[in-house]
Amino acid sequence: MKKKILIVGGVAGGASAGARLRRLSEEDEIIMFEKGPHVSFSNCALPYHLSGIIDEADRLVLMSPEKFLVQYNIKARVNNEVLSINKEEKYITVKNLENGETYKENYDKLVLSPGAKPIVPNIPGIEEVNIFTIRNVVDIDKLNKYVKSIDKQDIAVIGGGYIGVEAAENLRDAGYNVSLIEATDQILRPFDYDMVQIFHKELYDHSINLIVGDKVEKFEKDTVILSSGKRISAKVVVMAIGVSPETALAKGAELDIGETGAIKVDTNYKTNDDSIYAVGDAIEVYNSLTHSNVKLSLAGPAQKQARSVADHINGKKGLNKGYIGSSAIKVFDYNGASTGLNEALINVLNMNIQYDVVRVILTDKVGIMPNSSPVHLKLLYEVPTGKILGAQAIGKGDVTKRIDVIATAIKFGGTVEDLKDLELCYAPPFATAKDVVNYAGYVGSNLLNGDFKQVNIDLVRGLAERNAYIIDVRERGEYANGHIKNAINIPLSELRQRINEIPKDKPVYLHCRTGQRSYNATLALQNLGFNNVYNITGSFLALSFYEYFNDQTKNRESIVTEYNFK
Amino acid sequence: MKKKILIVGGVAGGASAGARLRRLSEEDEIIMFEKGPHVSFSNCALPYHLSGIIDEADRLVLMSPEKFLVQYNIKARVNNEVLSINKEEKYITVKNLENGETYKENYDKLVLSPGAKPIVPNIPGIEEVNIFTIRNVVDIDKLNKYVKSIDKQDIAVIGGGYIGVEAAENLRDAGYNVSLIEATDQILRPFDYDMVQIFHKELYDHSINLIVGDKVEKFEKDTVILSSGKRISAKVVVMAIGVSPETALAKGAELDIGETGAIKVDTNYKTNDDSIYAVGDAIEVYNSLTHSNVKLSLAGPAQKQARSVADHINGKKGLNKGYIGSSAIKVFDYNGASTGLNEALINVLNMNIQYDVVRVILTDKVGIMPNSSPVHLKLLYEVPTGKILGAQAIGKGDVTKRIDVIATAIKFGGTVEDLKDLELCYAPPFATAKDVVNYAGYVGSNLLNGDFKQVNIDLVRGLAERNAYIIDVRERGEYANGHIKNAINIPLSELRQRINEIPKDKPVYLHCRTGQRSYNATLALQNLGFNNVYNITGSFLALSFYEYFNDQTKNRESIVTEYNFK
Repeated sequence: MKKKILIVGGVAGGASAGARLRRLSEEDEIIMFEKGPHVSFSNCALPYHLSGIIDEADRLVLMSPEKFLVQYNIKARVNNEVLSINKEEKYITVKNLENGETYKENYDKLVLSPGAKPIVPNIPGIEEVNIFTIRNVVDIDKLNKYVKSIDKQDIAVIGGGYIGVEAAENLRDAGYNVSLIEATDQILRPFDYDMVQIFHKELYDHSINLIVGDKVEKFEKDTVILSSGKRISAKVVVMAIGVSPETALAKGAELDIGETGAIKVDTNYKTNDDSIYAVGDAIEVYNSLTHSNVKLSLAGPAQKQARSVADHINGKKGLNKGYIGSSAIKVFDYNGASTGLNEALINVLNMNIQYDVVRVILTDKVGIMPNSSPVHLKLLYEVPTGKILGAQAIGKGDVTKRIDVIATAIKFGGTVEDLKDLELCYAPPFATAKDVVNYAGYVGSNLLNGDFKQVNIDLVRGLAERNAYIIDVRERGEYANGHIKNAINIPLSELRQRINEIPKDKPVYLHCRTGQRSYNATLALQNLGFNNVYNITGSFLALSFYEYFNDQTKNRESIVTEYNFK
Repeated sequence: MKKKILIVGGVAGGASAGARLRRLSEEDEIIMFEKGPHVSFSNCALPYHLSGIIDEADRLVLMSPEKFLVQYNIKARVNNEVLSINKEEKYITVKNLENGETYKENYDKLVLSPGAKPIVPNIPGIEEVNIFTIRNVVDIDKLNKYVKSIDKQDIAVIGGGYIGVEAAENLRDAGYNVSLIEATDQILRPFDYDMVQIFHKELYDHSINLIVGDKVEKFEKDTVILSSGKRISAKVVVMAIGVSPETALAKGAELDIGETGAIKVDTNYKTNDDSIYAVGDAIEVYNSLTHSNVKLSLAGPAQKQARSVADHINGKKGLNKGYIGSSAIKVFDYNGASTGLNEALINVLNMNIQYDVVRVILTDKVGIMPNSSPVHLKLLYEVPTGKILGAQAIGKGDVTKRIDVIATAIKFGGTVEDLKDLELCYAPPFATAKDVVNYAGYVGSNLLNGDFKQVNIDLVRGLAERNAYIIDVRERGEYANGHIKNAINIPLSELRQRINEIPKDKPVYLHCRTGQRSYNATLALQNLGFNNVYNITGSFLALSFYEYFNDQTKNRESIVTEYNFK
């Protein structure tokens, strides 16, 4: 039976739903409504227009209404705003923004894919600055044209989420003076505080005026005033503090809204109305790790939901396995990726879960190959099951690969033991024979097994300040080039001869450059009868990154004589 | 109780075993014996010395005997050849190659890690050419110095396995005229014939004289003579036809040798002697997909085995889950990776397994980002379970990532359905919102579900020659730039209007550039009542690669008016 299906909103959710609906039925009538002029564009790529990496704004547009019509027989009505839904009589009211006329369109099935809109709080003095947001091609084109018109002036980006950071990077690449202002103590929440310092440093090193832990209080003429009293000059203010699901239409139709404030859907992405589905950034989804409903503004899940909806409308039943959330970002020369839970999220949600952390560093490819560089990997696993809960990786090399592998393992309920056995593709240009993921599996298994103890780099400042016994097992030359201020240098190569120097009556903390040699030293000491030995995870390399940004910006004394970032 | 453990052979297996043994016990005496001068080197990186990517041969050496002693308290005796094992009295006889003296060394546990040696068959006239093999740092240094001494002359590499191809590439990069000779009809057996043509083309396009399906018959003065009668000039001949496990020592001690000709070990990598273990290229391992013992010359598995042995010697029990075999290679601008089974292997082993194939092409990252390029992915899955059996990927972008994810899914017994749901890290510089792995999962699920039918590109020549009804659904401009000779151009955008042109009484084969638009067209035709419709997997892009090398080298008529490699 021929159905009439209306889709509100294009982009990842709406356009994918339309295409799949057409593949499942030639006869159904499918109409897509989009308030803006573009029905399908790459919204994740928007910031890359600011640097010129994507030179023409038009290139961001993936499909035109004309193409939708001839290739999919889908009518895409751009510049048509859906004003309301009458779910009893099954029609929507639409305003044609080109001619101002309002009309009704009835439906058998309605798919809502309205997305989420940038939050612009009514901060005092907001009329004193040029505020921009980034949601679609029109926005980015407008912002880009405006910044080009002012030549190389000061720009403030407010909000250190993905869009804010990408906008800041691309504007900096275009030559502007960019301030990136984040109210909390860190940018990019998918990364924990100890990991994200690598990005803080990278932004700082690229001359972005990164300000964390300081809130926008008010605006004055071309100026952002922060809680601290700092005044940031800004001809342009990009507001990127977050997005809020577009729920007006759903609320107007009295569709259920979840506790997160997003549209509530069932396992098939159907709202509480039997003929109305919803997908994408406007809905809340089930997180299979937190066991709760969450908002998840990611393109991949939106496409998956769209496909499920098209299937369900056509009588095909799928399985909703929930989401774990995987994402990636490039920050200048560094790449970052994350999946599943992180420590901050576990704490924020006050989750009743026992976990431990693996933090390892290994080169992305064979160390003697050109451009090999360290991958910093942090992995969370449940205690005592060893079940993997989440991971984050940052490095100049291929970090998405490692997180993709771990995301896959999480989907299968994998444990740290499983990671040991993974057979990953090795050749010198791509990886090491034992990949950092395998290595994390080994370390996690050893920890779980109680084979050794560790402390994380975030505790080192405290240890150093209260003169704990820290042994640097790197070779003398490495120590000379920079070390923790009161650390004692007993190179691994001298450890066994100098064993009597080491006290047995107090905790001993060991580190090297990345934690591998100090792990060997830790086990050697344990096997020699030392009972209170800790390996410092991340060791001197991660510590240098961890301390650097705060040292530079807080005017505090460094705990190292010199950093080491290699 | 203090144990004395001897290790025969260094590199991946022996050195890893030693390091882990030391971590598990400080008191054990550990001695490593190595016939050559280097106890630990990166053997996978050896070929990269020939191009100068790794400039100094010494950089290939990872650990010196001195470092092993001071860092691990392991005695590494280089230039010491183990001649025999007396397993009753538990000692080995060793020859010190520096002073010619022979001595005995007793053991509690013995670990064999002798590796495999390059096969050099006694081909007639072998004394007429300069034969080199590549096994260790000494070999590569010798080869490199020799080729440098002859200036830019002709070099023949015999054998198209990983080492042969990498040697050929690196010698070509160094400016030599390189012939790569492979007796069978394709190089790089981990890739199926339809996939490997991309590499054939890449080598051909980089002016390597690639000869497949032609055997070395004999040698004459600086010349290789092939079965076909072809004469290949070669001042240097690199013999890389394969390796054979070093079993002399094991055989001499009457240790069990498996059917593959490699040392037989149990689940803990123990030989039939309770005190003797063996790891690495010299042993056979259990392939969990073929359910048979195989030789597996890979560094990752060798390290894993070494660790298991060290654990077992120290009373720690692990689980041997068998192997699936994952590997990667760079061939000039293309990267390739594979895991698990391929079609050739299933046929060679005459495996009683029903399977089907997914072959998809998707960009490695968002198409509008710079340097985005197609990933060609081939996936095998079991019918009717959907269980993933293996995969291969080739492209200029990140293909190891995709195969690592699939290798991980295989380890967990994953199905094509599972691939749909994987949440992989997406940002425009790294991937697409729906990754090629997800896409393969969708296509596999659809195939398994009987939603559509396909034919692979290897059948297209036959179809074209017998004038089958092939529709090219690309747009007119694309068709004009190169197409299958008798294909009919009905662009997807015109399909519904021109439906009457398409015959209902015979099979219809559809293709576009990569198979996505033709998949939409296939479903549209099916939904419009066409029952005999096939999507050509890989479509025009994969077909161009598939036909090119044979067209160029076999002097046969091309079935396309022009190729398209983009």
